[in-house]
Amino acid sequence: MKIIIVGATGTMGKHLSSAFEREHEVIKAASKGTDIQVDITSTESIEAMYRQIGAFDALICTAGPTYVGPWKKMTDNEFRKGVEGKLMGQINLVLIGQHYINPKGSFSLITGALTYEPQLNFANASAANGAVEAFVRAAAIELENGIRINAVSPTVIEDSPHYFSFFPGEIPVTMQQLEYGFRKAVFGANTGQIIKPY
Amino acid sequence: MKIIIVGATGTMGKHLSSAFEREHEVIKAASKGTDIQVDITSTESIEAMYRQIGAFDALICTAGPTYVGPWKKMTDNEFRKGVEGKLMGQINLVLIGQHYINPKGSFSLITGALTYEPQLNFANASAANGAVEAFVRAAAIELENGIRINAVSPTVIEDSPHYFSFFPGEIPVTMQQLEYGFRKAVFGANTGQIIKPY
Repeated sequence: MKIIIVGATGTMGKHLSSAFEREHEVIKAASKGTDIQVDITSTESIEAMYRQIGAFDALICTAGPTYVGPWKKMTDNEFRKGVEGKLMGQINLVLIGQHYINPKGSFSLITGALTYEPQLNFANASAANGAVEAFVRAAAIELENGIRINAVSPTVIEDSPHYFSFFPGEIPVTMQQLEYGFRKAVFGANTGQIIKPY
Repeated sequence: MKIIIVGATGTMGKHLSSAFEREHEVIKAASKGTDIQVDITSTESIEAMYRQIGAFDALICTAGPTYVGPWKKMTDNEFRKGVEGKLMGQINLVLIGQHYINPKGSFSLITGALTYEPQLNFANASAANGAVEAFVRAAAIELENGIRINAVSPTVIEDSPHYFSFFPGEIPVTMQQLEYGFRKAVFGANTGQIIKPY
């Protein structure tokens, strides 16, 4: 299976790349430091990535920039970080990628527990997650040729301990659990699901 | 109570205006045809509206433009209609409005069943709804001075029969039910809730 991982240099992307490349052709993409470079806030850059790669079987996205910061300083400007990044970035990966993906292929996006369990300073990520999750359910009834779409929604990630203090009491998802979530999304048969790997 | 209704000239806004102005001071706002004009896709226009009105007790938004159309023609361009309209339009009404609203005031936004029950052609509205609902939960833990925020999420609306064919089998929400939903949001004590008036 030919699998694109967008965000391949991040904590999640690195783990998934090394787990999946044992059995599959993994194409790593990120904003820098990978053979394939992509800026998910630019539709031109996304289009160029897909043109360069050609037909593929699965797209995994673990990239989702959002604004983290105090509510009182949150204006339209700050909010755009997540709107252009985690929200439209991932949606555009699907809207454009549907024209390159093989029949029975799959899109696996990243959201997170903040959709339903907000934390102070993370309203932008909550909104982006909520949009992506609802989009996943809607896209699932639109995509043709057996193409599937799901999102994986972890809590805070085991290998990102610098985030723990922002998520008091949140039980971290292990890297293994996260991998199981993406395995279900990529190699399972479900579509339109928000997979909670815990 | 001084209540601003954004979208006052629409089907929902007209009903709510006439219901609430019997007992409250209702200030009607819309893109045209009202004393107060506002373009919710412009932060300058939102800021100007609030400056003109001054302190208020409740903001109701029933305005939420989105793109409705076939999936295959859906690109970043079409998707922006809902992102700038129902999504960022409503979020900016809150981010800016928090600096004008009275203590113990409330924001009541509009979403809809499409968050969880997608329909063909409406992926843009699904995504906007999902973002606004997650934002409502996040904003509820950030807003101070007893300021509340909720969303009302109806199905298709009784007085918009031209939409019925797009929502096969969806039981329409009556105008009275919709009004009850907004009554709960504005005059109740809840915050961070997605109110389903059915």
